[in-house]
Amino acid sequence: MTSTHSQRAEILVEALPYIRRFAGKTIVVKYGGNALAGTSGDDALNVFATDVVLMRLVGMRPVVVHGGGPQISELMDRLGKQPEFRDGLRVTDAETVDIARMVLIGQVNPQIVSAINVHGDYAVGVSGEDGGLIRAKVRDPQLGFVGDVADVNPSVLERLLADEFIPVVATVGVDDHGQAYNINADTVAGEIAAALGAEKLIYLTDIEGLRSNIEDSNSLIRQTTPDDLEELIAQGIIAGGMIPKVRSCIDAVRRGVRRAHILDGRTPHALLLELFTDDGVGTMVHDRADGAKED
Amino acid sequence: MTSTHSQRAEILVEALPYIRRFAGKTIVVKYGGNALAGTSGDDALNVFATDVVLMRLVGMRPVVVHGGGPQISELMDRLGKQPEFRDGLRVTDAETVDIARMVLIGQVNPQIVSAINVHGDYAVGVSGEDGGLIRAKVRDPQLGFVGDVADVNPSVLERLLADEFIPVVATVGVDDHGQAYNINADTVAGEIAAALGAEKLIYLTDIEGLRSNIEDSNSLIRQTTPDDLEELIAQGIIAGGMIPKVRSCIDAVRRGVRRAHILDGRTPHALLLELFTDDGVGTMVHDRADGAKED
Amino acid sequence: MTSTHSQRAEILVEALPYIRRFAGKTIVVKYGGNALAGTSGDDALNVFATDVVLMRLVGMRPVVVHGGGPQISELMDRLGKQPEFRDGLRVTDAETVDIARMVLIGQVNPQIVSAINVHGDYAVGVSGEDGGLIRAKVRDPQLGFVGDVADVNPSVLERLLADEFIPVVATVGVDDHGQAYNINADTVAGEIAAALGAEKLIYLTDIEGLRSNIEDSNSLIRQTTPDDLEELIAQGIIAGGMIPKVRSCIDAVRRGVRRAHILDGRTPHALLLELFTDDGVGTMVHDRADGAKED
Amino acid sequence: MTSTHSQRAEILVEALPYIRRFAGKTIVVKYGGNALAGTSGDDALNVFATDVVLMRLVGMRPVVVHGGGPQISELMDRLGKQPEFRDGLRVTDAETVDIARMVLIGQVNPQIVSAINVHGDYAVGVSGEDGGLIRAKVRDPQLGFVGDVADVNPSVLERLLADEFIPVVATVGVDDHGQAYNINADTVAGEIAAALGAEKLIYLTDIEGLRSNIEDSNSLIRQTTPDDLEELIAQGIIAGGMIPKVRSCIDAVRRGVRRAHILDGRTPHALLLELFTDDGVGTMVHDRADGAKED
Amino acid sequence: MTSTHSQRAEILVEALPYIRRFAGKTIVVKYGGNALAGTSGDDALNVFATDVVLMRLVGMRPVVVHGGGPQISELMDRLGKQPEFRDGLRVTDAETVDIARMVLIGQVNPQIVSAINVHGDYAVGVSGEDGGLIRAKVRDPQLGFVGDVADVNPSVLERLLADEFIPVVATVGVDDHGQAYNINADTVAGEIAAALGAEKLIYLTDIEGLRSNIEDSNSLIRQTTPDDLEELIAQGIIAGGMIPKVRSCIDAVRRGVRRAHILDGRTPHALLLELFTDDGVGTMVHDRADGAKED
Amino acid sequence: MTSTHSQRAEILVEALPYIRRFAGKTIVVKYGGNALAGTSGDDALNVFATDVVLMRLVGMRPVVVHGGGPQISELMDRLGKQPEFRDGLRVTDAETVDIARMVLIGQVNPQIVSAINVHGDYAVGVSGEDGGLIRAKVRDPQLGFVGDVADVNPSVLERLLADEFIPVVATVGVDDHGQAYNINADTVAGEIAAALGAEKLIYLTDIEGLRSNIEDSNSLIRQTTPDDLEELIAQGIIAGGMIPKVRSCIDAVRRGVRRAHILDGRTPHALLLELFTDDGVGTMVHDRADGAKED
Repeated sequence: MTSTHSQRAEILVEALPYIRRFAGKTIVVKYGGNALAGTSGDDALNVFATDVVLMRLVGMRPVVVHGGGPQISELMDRLGKQPEFRDGLRVTDAETVDIARMVLIGQVNPQIVSAINVHGDYAVGVSGEDGGLIRAKVRDPQLGFVGDVADVNPSVLERLLADEFIPVVATVGVDDHGQAYNINADTVAGEIAAALGAEKLIYLTDIEGLRSNIEDSNSLIRQTTPDDLEELIAQGIIAGGMIPKVRSCIDAVRRGVRRAHILDGRTPHALLLELFTDDGVGTMVHDRADGAKED
Repeated sequence: MTSTHSQRAEILVEALPYIRRFAGKTIVVKYGGNALAGTSGDDALNVFATDVVLMRLVGMRPVVVHGGGPQISELMDRLGKQPEFRDGLRVTDAETVDIARMVLIGQVNPQIVSAINVHGDYAVGVSGEDGGLIRAKVRDPQLGFVGDVADVNPSVLERLLADEFIPVVATVGVDDHGQAYNINADTVAGEIAAALGAEKLIYLTDIEGLRSNIEDSNSLIRQTTPDDLEELIAQGIIAGGMIPKVRSCIDAVRRGVRRAHILDGRTPHALLLELFTDDGVGTMVHDRADGAKED
Repeated sequence: MTSTHSQRAEILVEALPYIRRFAGKTIVVKYGGNALAGTSGDDALNVFATDVVLMRLVGMRPVVVHGGGPQISELMDRLGKQPEFRDGLRVTDAETVDIARMVLIGQVNPQIVSAINVHGDYAVGVSGEDGGLIRAKVRDPQLGFVGDVADVNPSVLERLLADEFIPVVATVGVDDHGQAYNINADTVAGEIAAALGAEKLIYLTDIEGLRSNIEDSNSLIRQTTPDDLEELIAQGIIAGGMIPKVRSCIDAVRRGVRRAHILDGRTPHALLLELFTDDGVGTMVHDRADGAKED
Repeated sequence: MTSTHSQRAEILVEALPYIRRFAGKTIVVKYGGNALAGTSGDDALNVFATDVVLMRLVGMRPVVVHGGGPQISELMDRLGKQPEFRDGLRVTDAETVDIARMVLIGQVNPQIVSAINVHGDYAVGVSGEDGGLIRAKVRDPQLGFVGDVADVNPSVLERLLADEFIPVVATVGVDDHGQAYNINADTVAGEIAAALGAEKLIYLTDIEGLRSNIEDSNSLIRQTTPDDLEELIAQGIIAGGMIPKVRSCIDAVRRGVRRAHILDGRTPHALLLELFTDDGVGTMVHDRADGAKED
Repeated sequence: MTSTHSQRAEILVEALPYIRRFAGKTIVVKYGGNALAGTSGDDALNVFATDVVLMRLVGMRPVVVHGGGPQISELMDRLGKQPEFRDGLRVTDAETVDIARMVLIGQVNPQIVSAINVHGDYAVGVSGEDGGLIRAKVRDPQLGFVGDVADVNPSVLERLLADEFIPVVATVGVDDHGQAYNINADTVAGEIAAALGAEKLIYLTDIEGLRSNIEDSNSLIRQTTPDDLEELIAQGIIAGGMIPKVRSCIDAVRRGVRRAHILDGRTPHALLLELFTDDGVGTMVHDRADGAKED
Repeated sequence: MTSTHSQRAEILVEALPYIRRFAGKTIVVKYGGNALAGTSGDDALNVFATDVVLMRLVGMRPVVVHGGGPQISELMDRLGKQPEFRDGLRVTDAETVDIARMVLIGQVNPQIVSAINVHGDYAVGVSGEDGGLIRAKVRDPQLGFVGDVADVNPSVLERLLADEFIPVVATVGVDDHGQAYNINADTVAGEIAAALGAEKLIYLTDIEGLRSNIEDSNSLIRQTTPDDLEELIAQGIIAGGMIPKVRSCIDAVRRGVRRAHILDGRTPHALLLELFTDDGVGTMVHDRADGAKED
């Protein structure tokens, strides 16, 4: 019996209280398009896929939500189409929304599904058009087919979860006339977490977490509340691309999601570290009334 | 009371025996990429979508399977990539299979899903990668990532049907290592019909039906059997692109699908005409032992 | 392809939104004894039966309620018993209630069941005595065994509907001592619709609908509300045998039935015309708060 | 504590092994029209109804099947119609079958249903026309609408039993064209027992049981087998109206019903005496291979 | 037919309304350790077991709760350990609680299970430690491991009842650290009855019932209410070992149990006499608002 | 991020294929009475309990079976009763079987249940008397109430497993008259594994595994088959107390249990080491036809 073996047993046993705590709980994970891009994307994806399968096998009900900004830009580039942004949002004409749909549903989504399914027939790709999952509305006519979430019908996700599948959601929405819209994936993740009454909403990002002082790497916020986050946005400390994530965390927690997390997706197994250690990693958002001791 | 109204009532009443006959039956419909291409594609798609929703509402369980050859060629063209065919099959390198996947799953599939869902939250898009639906194997190493069907795991379709959704299947398969393959959609439709124990397998094509004499437009075959079709293939009367369809009809009927049909998808509402009239349209394949009178 | 065929397809497609609207909805239809009497009764019954089977096959849950006044009078006549009416209600001694029961349960009910079941094993006859469906109480001691509805226990109907049968209800009730009562079928239909939470309550009558001026055939009321109907009764415009029907419409809509209809059962397929056209036929009663556009 | 009370407890306890033995078992009881006729009919019916409710409450699944010969004759008589018999079978013209149907379904059936339902909402009346229960075929064209059983579809009975109702069956059958037939109730009881895989088929008759010597009241047969009964019929010892009962006993036991009984329905609580005592009463038919000790 | 047989039938029929009234109802029966002790214990237990099986077979859902004081004392005596009581409660050190657990779970419980299971595979023994049934808390540190009920998790009982087993409960509880406690069985019976929403809570004791004057054997209280019982306790009329029983009756009725009973378990079949006669036996406690006529 | 954390993640990920392999599988574990005895018994039990809870939380369905020989001897000793053995089997008079029952069901069983339930409401103690689990028969009249397994009715275990409980089985059996028997726990474990169609049967013993040469500690047998084990018994290499274990392994594998294991229960977390490493520990028995590579 090598020491490694008994060590392995010890670590499994240490995981027991975490497994018990999250058994049967729905956990929505936003996986960023950035994480998939670049040469190391495949390895990172495989590690992520393993974590998600492990979550499922120990009894959690993970739902993966993803975007794909860099991949959309890349295909537009190959097709000779110039991306145009206004206030950080992509101006989306009819051709662009077709490209976005093609990339999100036809490239990024199956890439994630396939990485998970190397472990078994677990994942099923879903777009916001499937079963009326995401009803979209125009966000700003000047931006074209950029949508806001008008309504979420989570029944297709609930059925897939009941059948023990892992849904992987591409964040394309559709309006009543069948027109597709590109919707911010961070926002969709929060809406889905709220609609499913999830236990947790986890953003895998490329930052370490939120900071109280953007310049000071020692100012990482470990725990915070929706009210405090509102304050940080008002003060301009949270800004730019973080705003949709943080807004979604605020909304989700206010609508009953127990914990929202902003983690550093560049750390290998960040998901497991968050779920299976007491300290957790990154920034956790919880309701003020809810003591943050546990989890 | 206008005469139109009472006429409407009469026609509904005439549909009654057909509705009764197919209630609860699974009907696999192969919808061709050709039908979607071109300027009139949208209208045709809307008519098709209406037919499928009607089938579902009167109690059938339709499954739509689609390809997308012309759309793949078009995107390759826009990306400056030369399609290359060998014996009528597209040589598919890694980049091409990515393009095919993007087009089938991310363009054609949501187009069909969206046309159906204008009527309600019915359709859910599925690729062969979802829930391990289509396990692929290499067809011919010289063709690259062109696959044959190694195995069908219909459970994701069965669950969606049980939940009263309409599955729309993009014919991409995946091997054990997560590598995607482009697979002939006609073949996939037949395999799925057999795996689901379907009542009918219907090919919507751009021909009127099979002919016993390819030159003679009066030689349309109304009813035939697997054995007779084998004979026609041996004689070279059935040839070229029709072969995968006809082979799939033969296999499906031999594996228990009660009827296989080759219809002219250019006729509006061809599906309804087949399902709701005694004469039917196009060519029907049935087991010899099974009297062909009914249906 | 004859033009008739494509026309048939068009009409089926036009029925689609109506089928969708009523899928899974319970629809209580009162079928009058008058409709069954006379030489043309059989043909009318066959048309009615077809309509009911079609409703069931496209996903509605029809419940048929019937009376049988003319048939009761006829048998009394053959048995040499003089019918006696007081204020339009049949004075019902012990012998008369036995005759009524025999006619309603043993003659009219199986006639309807049998006409429906020519199409399949759909209909099951039920009397108010079965499973305690209709608990009766004395209406007026001077009338003998004429009952009012004391209580409806819809569980036998709910079970039959859940098992996908079409219940056909003979309107005989029973008190706690097992004594049978003859109860007005219009009243029973309304009580059952309310107890089942039906979507619609439809009276097939031998008038075209309600009129605001009884003399003026152009004064047909297309849509009205319970309050307006109360007013018409108070004004004496609605009178006589129409009162139980109209009272039942008022009560049913007030207790949550979404629409009540008074149709001309002499029009062939009046049921289908009401259900599958936008204009509808006859008079519709709806809650004031409930916009009447959609139906 | 009076001695009566403890005696009551003792007797309940003695019933325990019988209750256990028949828990969940289907028991088909044929109740004769004779039993209902005459002035004492009501009392006898009430006793019978109590027995059936008790069977149901201690966990058995009773099904009651009844005829109504005397009642049919009586109504024919009142309507001035002469009954005509040929070989003991009633010649049944169209008018007669209507009368039979009216009496069986509309008079006798609700009489039994109502007697049972004084104890609760247990009984549901069913005719052979309901849910396609009894498909009839012509027995002998000279007899008119006298039917044989062509087929039994027990699903309506199975559903009612699963819903814990007590089905009461009027023995009218129907052919594919919706034509009603009068069918011998003894025969129907046997067919239904076989179709339901009943544990017991019990005939309540007005004889004490079968005799091996028709003249000798001491020759009561307590137990016998299908083969021995065939012999007694061949010898003419069993004859006349007993033949359909005995034939049905033979057939039912051969098709898997565990016991068939011919009891004296004139004995109060004959059903309970048979079910709750070791000796039983009347004549029991069992398969030869099946030791007759138990039950 | 002997008169005994028809008498048996009559008595069964008289039981019918009681069977109907309690069908599907949960009945918690506290069976005392005293009843099991002594030479006649076995016979009494067999009679009790028969009653419980009969209750189950006629559709009730009995739950048996037992203590075992005399048996605990006996084993302590054999092991040379002196029982020590303080205010009528056993001082329970670590060794004593182990002895109590051994006797209750390992001796008394299987004795009852085994007596019931002679009739079939009905009973399943359960202790308060199983599935977290009884969470205990310290009652008084001076008494050692004597517990009060902190919480009841009835799910293990609900599952066993749903599976049609008869649970037999040994009244040992456990705290969060896995420490066992001896808990008063009368108290546990009341808590379980309340947690299960039982219809009845029945104490089988060795007294005839409660008396309004302890000296006067004619002062048996037949019916009373929680308020009146509080008064009797305040007046000292109810005292000593009866207090936990009476307190539990009061609490259970206040928490929704419909009737609580204190019966004389020495009367054979006391359970059946209470359940199957109108007078009942012993003392019944009911809510004042709830008319006590019907029981 | 300490290295310990990422190491923890790695080890969890390595466990993934094992978790997947055993998800939903029933695993019967025999836990010896020896393991519980002595001062270190409690710690060992806590480690064992943790392992069992972990098995359950990652989706396995563990069943624990235990004996308690040393504890029985100890109580006999305290009660001044001399244990008497014949051929290694305890002679069991009426008093002894009562003591054995008390110890197994009332002492050892709740000790294990309680150790597991510190982690949650998982375990439910069951004896062979509950729900007719183990029907016993006399093994040898000279041994008194020592039983063999006559029959196993696993329904109580199946129900508890379906309700996601962990059954803990005390190996007392009962005959048709309610007489209890002491039965060898090793034998019971094998019978239960076979009756449940378990994936694995694991014996936790106080030896390292089986040896091919009893003197040579290097002769540990890693894998073997029923036939080879028969040979080793015939040769006397397997002898004494190991025989019931080994016989049970042979029988269980022959009756369809996929793997039987003899492990050293003294190694901490031996269960996890067996389940979560490729090498496994101790001796594994498998069917010859079944390649032993996997597992």
